[in-house]
Amino acid sequence: MRYFLLIALSTHSFGHNFLSPLATLRSAHSTLSHAFTRRRPYPTIQMEETLRKALAEKQSAVDSQGNAVRALKAAKATKADVDAAIEALNGLKLEKASIEKQLQAAVSGGDGSLSREAFRQTVNNTLERRLFYIPSFKIYRGVAGLYDYGPPGCAVKSNVLGFWRQHFVLEENMLEVDCPCVTPEVVLKASGHVDKFTDLMVKDEKTGTCYRADHLLKDFCNEKLQKDLSITAEKAAELKHVLAVLDDLSSEELGAKIKEYGITAPDTKNPLSDPYPFNLMFQTSIGPSGLSPGYMRPETAQGIFVNFKDLYYYNGNKLPFAAAQIGQAFRNEISPRQGLLRVREFTLAEIEHFVDPENKSHPKFSEVANLEFLMFPREEQMSGHSAKKIPLGEAVSRGIVNNETLGYFIGRVYLFLTRLGIDEDRLRFRQHLANEMAHYAADCWDAEIESSYGWIECVGIADRSAYDLRAHTDKSGVALVAQEKFSEPREVEKLVINPVKKELGLAFKGNQRMVVEALEAMNEKEALEMKATLESKGETEFLVCTLGKNVTITKSMVTISKEIKKEHQRVFTPSVIEPSFGIGRIIYCLYEHSFYTRPSKAGDEQLNVFRFPPLVAPIKCTVFPLVQNQQYEEVAIVISQSLTTAGISHKIDITGTSIGKRYARTDELGVPFAITVDSTSSVTIRERDSKDQIRVDVEQAATVIKEVTDGRTTWADVWSTFPHQSSASADDE
Amino acid sequence: MRYFLLIALSTHSFGHNFLSPLATLRSAHSTLSHAFTRRRPYPTIQMEETLRKALAEKQSAVDSQGNAVRALKAAKATKADVDAAIEALNGLKLEKASIEKQLQAAVSGGDGSLSREAFRQTVNNTLERRLFYIPSFKIYRGVAGLYDYGPPGCAVKSNVLGFWRQHFVLEENMLEVDCPCVTPEVVLKASGHVDKFTDLMVKDEKTGTCYRADHLLKDFCNEKLQKDLSITAEKAAELKHVLAVLDDLSSEELGAKIKEYGITAPDTKNPLSDPYPFNLMFQTSIGPSGLSPGYMRPETAQGIFVNFKDLYYYNGNKLPFAAAQIGQAFRNEISPRQGLLRVREFTLAEIEHFVDPENKSHPKFSEVANLEFLMFPREEQMSGHSAKKIPLGEAVSRGIVNNETLGYFIGRVYLFLTRLGIDEDRLRFRQHLANEMAHYAADCWDAEIESSYGWIECVGIADRSAYDLRAHTDKSGVALVAQEKFSEPREVEKLVINPVKKELGLAFKGNQRMVVEALEAMNEKEALEMKATLESKGETEFLVCTLGKNVTITKSMVTISKEIKKEHQRVFTPSVIEPSFGIGRIIYCLYEHSFYTRPSKAGDEQLNVFRFPPLVAPIKCTVFPLVQNQQYEEVAIVISQSLTTAGISHKIDITGTSIGKRYARTDELGVPFAITVDSTSSVTIRERDSKDQIRVDVEQAATVIKEVTDGRTTWADVWSTFPHQSSASADDE
Repeated sequence: MRYFLLIALSTHSFGHNFLSPLATLRSAHSTLSHAFTRRRPYPTIQMEETLRKALAEKQSAVDSQGNAVRALKAAKATKADVDAAIEALNGLKLEKASIEKQLQAAVSGGDGSLSREAFRQTVNNTLERRLFYIPSFKIYRGVAGLYDYGPPGCAVKSNVLGFWRQHFVLEENMLEVDCPCVTPEVVLKASGHVDKFTDLMVKDEKTGTCYRADHLLKDFCNEKLQKDLSITAEKAAELKHVLAVLDDLSSEELGAKIKEYGITAPDTKNPLSDPYPFNLMFQTSIGPSGLSPGYMRPETAQGIFVNFKDLYYYNGNKLPFAAAQIGQAFRNEISPRQGLLRVREFTLAEIEHFVDPENKSHPKFSEVANLEFLMFPREEQMSGHSAKKIPLGEAVSRGIVNNETLGYFIGRVYLFLTRLGIDEDRLRFRQHLANEMAHYAADCWDAEIESSYGWIECVGIADRSAYDLRAHTDKSGVALVAQEKFSEPREVEKLVINPVKKELGLAFKGNQRMVVEALEAMNEKEALEMKATLESKGETEFLVCTLGKNVTITKSMVTISKEIKKEHQRVFTPSVIEPSFGIGRIIYCLYEHSFYTRPSKAGDEQLNVFRFPPLVAPIKCTVFPLVQNQQYEEVAIVISQSLTTAGISHKIDITGTSIGKRYARTDELGVPFAITVDSTSSVTIRERDSKDQIRVDVEQAATVIKEVTDGRTTWADVWSTFPHQSSASADDE
Repeated sequence: MRYFLLIALSTHSFGHNFLSPLATLRSAHSTLSHAFTRRRPYPTIQMEETLRKALAEKQSAVDSQGNAVRALKAAKATKADVDAAIEALNGLKLEKASIEKQLQAAVSGGDGSLSREAFRQTVNNTLERRLFYIPSFKIYRGVAGLYDYGPPGCAVKSNVLGFWRQHFVLEENMLEVDCPCVTPEVVLKASGHVDKFTDLMVKDEKTGTCYRADHLLKDFCNEKLQKDLSITAEKAAELKHVLAVLDDLSSEELGAKIKEYGITAPDTKNPLSDPYPFNLMFQTSIGPSGLSPGYMRPETAQGIFVNFKDLYYYNGNKLPFAAAQIGQAFRNEISPRQGLLRVREFTLAEIEHFVDPENKSHPKFSEVANLEFLMFPREEQMSGHSAKKIPLGEAVSRGIVNNETLGYFIGRVYLFLTRLGIDEDRLRFRQHLANEMAHYAADCWDAEIESSYGWIECVGIADRSAYDLRAHTDKSGVALVAQEKFSEPREVEKLVINPVKKELGLAFKGNQRMVVEALEAMNEKEALEMKATLESKGETEFLVCTLGKNVTITKSMVTISKEIKKEHQRVFTPSVIEPSFGIGRIIYCLYEHSFYTRPSKAGDEQLNVFRFPPLVAPIKCTVFPLVQNQQYEEVAIVISQSLTTAGISHKIDITGTSIGKRYARTDELGVPFAITVDSTSSVTIRERDSKDQIRVDVEQAATVIKEVTDGRTTWADVWSTFPHQSSASADDE
């Protein structure tokens, strides 16, 4: 067998390592340097972790000072010395108490800022109330892990996907394909999903309720570490070690830990079964016979790999090229948690960039080489440092990032996410550690976004070498390869194995064919060893697998030699570099990064705002007649028609509600601009975040909105061009 | 039970009646009036059917003239009379032979035009060779009924969906939602799919191969009618009748017909099993327990219905409003045939327009009232007439179309399809006959497009009354209703049923509650009858279902009266008008309507062209340096960058291939414009269908392409503005 079929799916299966224990552990090494930006509404994980670390240090200082006091007393030291030592101890205790208080505040929000949970609750209440999302099949009490996008959510998603197509498919001339979700078993057998795409599950032994074994263990460890401030340093280290190796634990090891810690079913406290694997694919049957098993695809990538040959031809038999696919993927999670971040059906956008393994340079790399953003290389993680800003060109030239093409995509992903509105201070590119990466992968980086749930893997960017194309070549028998035609023939030294059939026939009779095939199938090393043995000893023992035994090969039965051959082309399996985007996760993080509150003018309530850039905003503009009045309504309708013609999504609101309330309502949907009709000749345009207003002629309104939402001009330019309008009369009643 | 759960899913299940026998039969009544338009590359079905009818008439004329000759001979008529009769007979036979020849030509393409099958083959070869579509999982020998969209197909689909969003969602302010494909059983139980969404299947008794029972019977009848020119008029009428009632046949009736006609398995000629129902949904299991059955949704509509309450609230508790959804739907077809038209997974775009059943007017109806296109009302179909042009306003005012809202959507669908490039002469709106429509539907029209497969149902536009919302109200217990608040309270006469609990308790003891509930549940008619009987006889027998028996109710046990009540609002279940688009079918028909061939300049081959409008074209523009030359390539790259900035999908081709070949290659992809760089200051722009070329400055090129592809100007305008370029030197080498 030429290729190793043992694979670590976790690296390929985007999102499968969600909030991995490694990520949790690693964040403890971070500093406070990025702790409080303008936009972050809750204490960072880093801050919490730093405080926790400081607390542990202070605790050991208290402990050793306590020992010192006892030692002084035992040694009958002078009262002055003992008192001084006690004073020092009390000082340390006070410091410890202060850190404890800070930590408590950071965890619960007691310092006036919101706790992460409270912030998340506020965002999610707003999202659900305004139908950004709806738990699916709600009137039937829903299904865990399934969510609908309601009207504004659907518009945001459509905008994100539209920009993805523009930024990747169009600008990079990618070949987009659209394959079915229903997939026959043979395809997912080849990819390894049928055998390996599993999670370990435990069952409540009395009720039969199912849980993910690693989640229960992780929850136990985190709970202990976070809630129990009294555990010993040794115990804490042990729990942290369990979290660090959680993904590597076997079924037996997981089961043993669960027993050791006495973990029971969370809801009932009943005992749990031993862990056993559960395949995460939704299974079905294709056609009426019941004989063709199929699955709902767990990723969109396989549809591209199986089409490699046609796509390569479509591209004029030239490398490199990229194919892309946007579509639904399905994972039958054991017990989905964490809302919109771990769901059973989701939209993936995947790129497979096929490249010659001997040349992974990228012609457009210079366009991204000067970008500088948070990177978290393997070595920084191992040595306990934190993510730091590295210019991308340097990261590639220093070999931190394996090759230019991988680096180019990292840069393009950074641009994509930040243009959507992801806060660059809460975005980092984290390199996979050796134990996270499949053996065949050359390098792998995740774009992780910090949310109230922690650092979330939202885009995986992996150099998967030739693994996938080889797996499908092996299974299908169709060669998924590329050719490089040489401009002139090249001389290549080749090993030639020539079995002498006559001699073999005499020696092995009916088994001759099996022996011939086995000889021809030797690799270079085996053949050279045989050649040496035959030359020195005249014969050798040789295992023929198809016969299940050794046979004796003599010198006269085979000639093995190196020959110089002329070759006109090179045939090879391309490497694939795969950026894989979890669209739903990106959108959820975008919601958190865009959300803020501000007091109403009267100061009696907090108003919610999403600061979506126009590119993402579900509705670009609203049109409000200031008061209910036929003339104003007519003007509003005229403006609405010009907006429709210009292709700008908008909403008219002619209810008699106060203008301040109408602004607040649409701020909560993230609508960036509001046109208010307060005369028949000119209108005001209000910008959401500054609440600044300008005055423009009725005829200009749609054009101004079009230019500023298309990005052809900025609000600052508009602000400096048109007369300003005092907002006192209208806004925030 | 208030609502009838018996439903005819065929009307709702879009596409399920594909190429229904009724459509086949009906086309026989059409005339030749639309037979040969400029664009139709093969004889119409109508033409064939008309010839077939003429042939049958001529055959009976021959028969009766033959009888006349025999009668004359038997009567010993004069030789002159007999000869004259024989001459007439021979004349008739010659005419019959001539019609036969025409028919043969029309069926096989022997008249020089392509046969339908040959045309289809040419289109499909082109589509598959250029990767508009690819049989899914081809390297594993594929799966029937699953297709991928390759790069140009994917771009066409994305353009069609983008225009759908613009034309419907944006222009009509619809609420778009996006729900999962995985659907729990309870939802599809309520909708009726679990029980009724079946096809009748027969099995080859020896091999187990499955077939759709109605397809086998249909094929048999069509084959007989089309290939066997000798069958008697009676036999032909019988076969046509079978085709007409095919959809109404029970399992037993279908089985009996299959036996009567001796139909066997098509591949093996083995006997067939009796027909039995097969549910067409892909089944799966949600979560790890195996206790939650689920299905891949067979349509997107249910996701909207279950969200009605939230969407109504989102719309400010106001009617009418429409919700829309684009997404994948799944049908596990028994044996998919007819390529891209009957597939197991497909994209649906559905609109559910919720409206007060007492007011189905539409404020924008006047905008479509003057449209005039082919309509095929129920009565025309029944009376054997053909589709005819009727102004939409007239169709509504004369009551042919049930209401303005339904009419408005018919008009909008017409505009949508024709703007995509569907030939309006091969598009008709056909009203469902009584036996096609569910009992609850108020009216239903299909947009049918003529393709080489016949008339294809591509959009269904149905007034489904309150059926769906009521079904989910009943099953979920959540009232999916709307309220109309009256500006002042209204007096309403109401029937009031007051059971006298004391008397009932004495009479029925422990059964009292069941009797009370049964009395309260009486409808108006039942209650009035009871009132009359009690007044005349003093007592009556009354069936209490929950007790399973009759009880005797006396006058003292209940009072039934009509009372005047004041009501402040009306609570009602909205009606829903549902336009449902089969996106894949529309795209396939668009391919056929857009395809044509023209001879190469040398005349030695036929070149393929897709005449997609810019809106639909997968790539809007190509950039070709005329010859391989660094200066020209640099200009080409500059133009390419401006096109990217303008958001125009395009392709550079710098191969040394002749310009004529490069034009031909992209004509075959339907690229409307080509920019050829033949100097460093100015370039030519070529239009695909006319092959006309203009000359523009390098700086203008992207702008001209942008304006003409956005529809802000036309090629005719561009042609009259810029200098013309002789094409002799470049095109069609």
